[in-house]
Order: sequence, then structure tokens, then C-alpha cells
Amino acid sequence: MSEFSLHCFVESGNAYKAALMLELCGCDWSPVLVPFFAGATRTPEWRDSVNEMGEAPVLEHKGADGMVRLTQSGVILDYLAGLTGQFGPADEQERREILRWILFDNHKFTSYYATLRFLYGLQKTGETPVTEWLRGRARAAYGIVDKHLAASDFLVGGRPTIADLSLAGYAYYSEPTGIDRAAEFPAVEAWAARIAALPGWKPPAALMPAQA
Amino acid sequence: MSEFSLHCFVESGNAYKAALMLELCGCDWSPVLVPFFAGATRTPEWRDSVNEMGEAPVLEHKGADGMVRLTQSGVILDYLAGLTGQFGPADEQERREILRWILFDNHKFTSYYATLRFLYGLQKTGETPVTEWLRGRARAAYGIVDKHLAASDFLVGGRPTIADLSLAGYAYYSEPTGIDRAAEFPAVEAWAARIAALPGWKPPAALMPAQA
Repeated sequence: MSEFSLHCFVESGNAYKAALMLELCGCDWSPVLVPFFAGATRTPEWRDSVNEMGEAPVLEHKGADGMVRLTQSGVILDYLAGLTGQFGPADEQERREILRWILFDNHKFTSYYATLRFLYGLQKTGETPVTEWLRGRARAAYGIVDKHLAASDFLVGGRPTIADLSLAGYAYYSEPTGIDRAAEFPAVEAWAARIAALPGWKPPAALMPAQA
Repeated sequence: MSEFSLHCFVESGNAYKAALMLELCGCDWSPVLVPFFAGATRTPEWRDSVNEMGEAPVLEHKGADGMVRLTQSGVILDYLAGLTGQFGPADEQERREILRWILFDNHKFTSYYATLRFLYGLQKTGETPVTEWLRGRARAAYGIVDKHLAASDFLVGGRPTIADLSLAGYAYYSEPTGIDRAAEFPAVEAWAARIAALPGWKPPAALMPAQA
């Protein structure tokens, strides 16, 4: 049995953040399929005994002190950086700066974009007032990150950190969102290519299982 | 001059998270008005020299090693907990659990509710597909927190921590949102009252300046 089990599904960019970190760090890990679209995270069993927040990913780590179960991709990234010594901060100032970008990611960057992609690209709601509104919010967040990345190769400290792995969660999916990343946000596009060039990088479909 | 300056405005619950923490910890701090509704955070000056993320709050701390400037309420709470020894985690497991709730807050709890309150309660857009959608998302997040708080007085460790101060950011504003907190989420209502009973607690209007 692997040291780490990641409850995930291929469509989840939030799960991909954790899967990519595990893979880039060379961890001994296995994915466990969460049948999300069949409602797995909304069942009482999942809420009561796996994750009360009703979300994937969930990471289980069989460590020296027993089983550790973690949820929230930002917590998982922080935990793995501490454990492996990879993609983490060099000092307290960097630790705060990484946390700052991970919070921005959760609040605005991943949040609006992933929800837009879920409605418009996966549920195929078509264009609605909600998808239009989400796209405006996503574009504003992308603009901030694009400006930052136009001046530095990675988000913090000039090297890849867990901040990059967090924001890159939805960078390698192809469902339509109505945003043309290459044309509108060229610095984000170039940064996504830099991350994809890291040794050991794999796309979501190579790391996580698909649903029936 | 105070040791801490908090760039804020009374309508911002995200700024209130930091203001309340400073006040409860007995810090020597002063608020500095951000004329948000006049567009202050959207100017090139603000973006280039104060906060590229275009957001309040911003905390400035004149410490022993010079000026530290911090943005993102979660970063500010973490920094102040470390500095003052108050409302922080007792160990690594609690640190992760606090981070987990702060991330959930940024992603879903504060995020959807504050945006709903901004559109429906402050901008007075009236009911739109976007406010309806945000209310559904906010209710889902509130339901998760309500269930958690029905079983424990505070979010983590049975005592108030920065996780509570983060989620309580928008708990003391009265603009309409279409959600009746007392009726729909009684455990959240009781928890907000417990936080308001902490020694030194003050409401937003007693801590932060209003705009012209």
C-alpha cells in the first residue's frame, strides 16, 4: 500500500494541485477515485467521516505517528512541502508571501475560473448571467496574476513553489470557458508552460482516475 | 505614531477581521481610511506601490527590522497570532486545522456571502440571477459551518482562534442579504454572539472609519 492516498477525480483541478505536488516530489502515492458526479461528496457518510466540508481532494498519509487525514488543497500543499522539503518557503517572509498567493487563489483566481469552467465547460449551462459574471471576475483575477508573472518567472522567490502549484490547478484542462488564455493573458500562458516543463510534470489525466 | 497601521474601511468585513484581531490583542494600532468606493484600490498607485492584488486590508507594521507590509486577511491574522501569542494554534495539527478553515472561509464562506451582501445589500442590484446563485452558494457554506458549530463552541480546539476571527468578518453587518441567519443557521448565530462577548470586542463601526 502506498504511503499517501489521494481521494480525487480527474476533472478536479483542486485535486490536481495535490496530485501534481505528490508526483513532482517523488512521493509514494496512489489515487483513489471519488465518484463526484454521482454525488459521493454530498452523502452523509462522506460528510460525517471523510470531509465535513464536502470537498475533494482528501489526502491520507500513513506516517510514523499513525494516519493523518487532510483536506483543502492549500493545507495539503503546505503539509507536503514541510514533509518533503520541496517547493516550500526559504524563510518566514516567503512563507507569508506563498500563503498570500494561495489565499488569493482560493478566494479569486481558482475560485471564479473553476466555477466558470464547471458551469460553462462541464455542465454546459450555456451563457447565463452567472457565467458572464464569473468570467468578469475570473478575468480580473487573471489580470492581476498576469501582471505579476510578466515581471517574474514564478510567483514567489523566482523559483517554483507551492504557490505556483496551487494557482496552476486548472491550467491544463481544455473545456471551454470563453477565456482565451494565450491571447488575453500571455504571461500566465508562459508560466503554465514553465511549470509543465518541470521534471516529472504530468497532466491531470495521467495522474488521476476518470469516472464511469 | 502607532506600531500598526491598518488600511481599511468600515464596510469591509475582510478589513474587520484584521481590525478585530488587533483590538482583541491589545495592539497599538490606527486605522487609515481606504476610499474604496471612490476607486482607491483600482488606481495604478495603489496597485503598483501598496497592493498589486487591489484589495484592502493592508497592514503596515513598524517592527524592529523595519517596515513589514502585509495583505490578505489570512496572512495578517497568521502574522499577528505569531507576534502576540494570541488566538493562534497550540501545535502543528491545530495550525493545519486553522489554515483549513481560513481557506474554506476565503473560498466559500466569506467569499460568497460577502459578494452577495456587496451586490444585494450595498450596491442594491435587487434580485438577479447572480444574487440568487450567490445566495445558494452562501447557504451551502453556512450549512457546513452551522453543523460544525452545533457540536463545538468555536471552530478549532474549543477556544477562539484566528479561524473564528476570519469567518466572523461579516457577522456584524446589517445590510440585507436575503438570508435570515438567526432562523436558518442558529449555531452560527450563537457562535457570533460568543465572539461578540469576548473581552474587548467591538463592532466594525467602532474600529474602522467611514467614507465621505
